[in-house]
Amino acid sequence: MKILEQRILTDGKVLPGGILKVDGFLNHRIDPQLCHEMALELKRLYGGCGVNKVLTVEASGIALGIMTALVFDCPLVFAKKSRTKNISDSVWSAEVDSFTHGTRNTVMVSKEYLGPNDRVLLVDDFLATGAALIGLKQLVTLAGGTVVGAGIAIEKAFQGGGDALRKEGMQVESLARIARMTDDSITFCE
Amino acid sequence: MKILEQRILTDGKVLPGGILKVDGFLNHRIDPQLCHEMALELKRLYGGCGVNKVLTVEASGIALGIMTALVFDCPLVFAKKSRTKNISDSVWSAEVDSFTHGTRNTVMVSKEYLGPNDRVLLVDDFLATGAALIGLKQLVTLAGGTVVGAGIAIEKAFQGGGDALRKEGMQVESLARIARMTDDSITFCE
Repeated sequence: MKILEQRILTDGKVLPGGILKVDGFLNHRIDPQLCHEMALELKRLYGGCGVNKVLTVEASGIALGIMTALVFDCPLVFAKKSRTKNISDSVWSAEVDSFTHGTRNTVMVSKEYLGPNDRVLLVDDFLATGAALIGLKQLVTLAGGTVVGAGIAIEKAFQGGGDALRKEGMQVESLARIARMTDDSITFCE
Repeated sequence: MKILEQRILTDGKVLPGGILKVDGFLNHRIDPQLCHEMALELKRLYGGCGVNKVLTVEASGIALGIMTALVFDCPLVFAKKSRTKNISDSVWSAEVDSFTHGTRNTVMVSKEYLGPNDRVLLVDDFLATGAALIGLKQLVTLAGGTVVGAGIAIEKAFQGGGDALRKEGMQVESLARIARMTDDSITFCE
């Protein structure tokens, strides 16, 4: 998606440790028009797939998630994070390793809000190792629902998570795919 | 706002301890059309006030926040929560007491994204004691910006936080104001 790639080149910064800082428009200060354009692009990609629920994880997936739910005219559910093991029986839960932070989180969704009739589009702002998507997919599987695919704003393709999920058969569509980054350049996949 | 009040009566549940459970449409599973309607109502209320930034706090304020930012055509900034005291120099930060959880959180915004030219609409899903709004207002004040007012989905008016802020001169507009709740009834303010 050209306007997203252009925005990354204009406003993104590569920080030490392979961090792409895009918090000026994507995940701290958020440009709602860009967010809406991204949602429309996801609709173009997944419009014919019978999606009836959008699932993301708090907090930075929520903005793109609700905008996507708006254009698909279906509910958004966001999974909650917890660092505790204190999970009640009434939630679906999965473990997600954060490679960036070196922590393990539990993500959970109330059983009321995810079930066998759901055809779910997973949405997130970033895809790197794929850990968050794997966790979200587990929640849908536990609920007996169907993962239609994933819609991602920015994929750090060089970290391999997206391709690993594609190899397992998941449709993963990323609106910008970064092939490599250095301190002063960002190169997108062809 | 009648459609929100009706939705609360239809889908809300009063849980022990004075908790209003509306996570079926507001803050876990979210109805994007209702969210959009609420944003349009905030535009009707604050449309002439020169708002150029929407500020909320993660996670459950983000959905209404980004929708509001979309209809105002301005950026959303969401304050991040932290339970640590490890705050860098490059953020505005404020302490927020959670009366519900009995905890104290730090909320923070990067100094890059909140400044003296900002005319800020504070947005949140709930207003009870007002602690979150007080924290967000502090962030804007630290940045030298102006709080235009607050736009809230549901105010538990009986907890007094909204009226205390109004008494101090803040414009606070809540789309549904609950006067009292019992196990089997919810009464809205006139």
